[in-house]
Amino acid sequence: MQDVSIPRVGIGTDVHQLVEGRPLWVAGLHWPDAPRGLEGHSDGDCVAHAMVDAVLTAAGLGDIGSRFGTADPRYAGASGLEFLRGTAELVREAGLAVGNVSVQLIGNEPRLSGRRDEAMAVLSEAIGAPVSLSGTTTDGLGLTGRGEGIAAIAVALVV
Amino acid sequence: MQDVSIPRVGIGTDVHQLVEGRPLWVAGLHWPDAPRGLEGHSDGDCVAHAMVDAVLTAAGLGDIGSRFGTADPRYAGASGLEFLRGTAELVREAGLAVGNVSVQLIGNEPRLSGRRDEAMAVLSEAIGAPVSLSGTTTDGLGLTGRGEGIAAIAVALVV
Amino acid sequence: MQDVSIPRVGIGTDVHQLVEGRPLWVAGLHWPDAPRGLEGHSDGDCVAHAMVDAVLTAAGLGDIGSRFGTADPRYAGASGLEFLRGTAELVREAGLAVGNVSVQLIGNEPRLSGRRDEAMAVLSEAIGAPVSLSGTTTDGLGLTGRGEGIAAIAVALVV
Repeated sequence: MQDVSIPRVGIGTDVHQLVEGRPLWVAGLHWPDAPRGLEGHSDGDCVAHAMVDAVLTAAGLGDIGSRFGTADPRYAGASGLEFLRGTAELVREAGLAVGNVSVQLIGNEPRLSGRRDEAMAVLSEAIGAPVSLSGTTTDGLGLTGRGEGIAAIAVALVV
Repeated sequence: MQDVSIPRVGIGTDVHQLVEGRPLWVAGLHWPDAPRGLEGHSDGDCVAHAMVDAVLTAAGLGDIGSRFGTADPRYAGASGLEFLRGTAELVREAGLAVGNVSVQLIGNEPRLSGRRDEAMAVLSEAIGAPVSLSGTTTDGLGLTGRGEGIAAIAVALVV
Repeated sequence: MQDVSIPRVGIGTDVHQLVEGRPLWVAGLHWPDAPRGLEGHSDGDCVAHAMVDAVLTAAGLGDIGSRFGTADPRYAGASGLEFLRGTAELVREAGLAVGNVSVQLIGNEPRLSGRRDEAMAVLSEAIGAPVSLSGTTTDGLGLTGRGEGIAAIAVALVV
């Protein structure tokens, strides 16, 4: 019924707490100067996790919980990049392709500006498609404005 | 001016409070074991409402407030599925078709996992197009992390 | 590698604080009856800013911070419409075109209903493509529900 040439769109969001005593991994990169890191069963990379949900739902292939569940010991401490590579493989196996992904990091830290290109290259390589990464703050308001955590929101097209 | 073969994208979000003494209806389903339900003039199904705004704005047909306003007594207690069916009809009347919808439930409850397929079938039937549903939490932070309410975010393509 | 006829999708969000003693400019319009306005280096129009990030990331052209940075004195007090016009120019220079934009204002004020068409006309003229604008609240919860600020979320297709 649906024209196979019509792309499909997907969305994903994710939030993780910032806690003391963890390294900060976000947007596929390690941020060695960050005083706190993201909590999580995996590395807590909310940028990668939001991307995974955007791509999987665009492709109609479930979501991060059903594919890379926290109950599965294989994914304890897994990096967000591993989830992105696994997602790319599921999409390929379904005979689909990722068109592009746009993802925004919402939080006070880290400042992306100096390393945006590096992050986009790493994320694009993992998902096998162009990735645009932006960063914003919430002007001191809400959970990200108070520095309690970092949020990310992503959209993807799959063809 | 715009090539008619180019799809159009839309986004919608919605948040409703969780309150005692209401049944929980969300993602088109009744969740009989939930201790609290969503507040609202209608059934408060934020997943369906976010989908309606995503589809209506993709189609350039207004938004949920302008089409199914709370001032209209016909919609008092209306189910989210009724809004989705009404939205599908508006889109058809405009000579358009919904390509797909991706929607994420953001909250501590309900746990979608056991009933995700059932919810997707109900939502897809109502909007007349493939629907992907995912679920996430905000790691204990913010209004959804504190259990004050449930949020939803949806994107849609219309052709 | 990527078929040039496949559109690309982008997302952007923005939040600004509501403060006393500032005029309210949002969704490209002045709201003279609003008791408070949006804080910001520019006019604080979060609807326009979310649209800019959605379009720039869809087009792979950076984000609002890298293109219209707050460190740049040319943009002190700049209107959101100026950023939208600048964004449209960047997209044209890259040989691309904006397909459409969907944007949602999330907050208690202003009530869009009476001026939605006026806002959509102004925003569409500035970005050079159809714009759908919706409005929602968060049912009294979170930063927007408490009236601390206004949020906006936008998606765009670029071809």
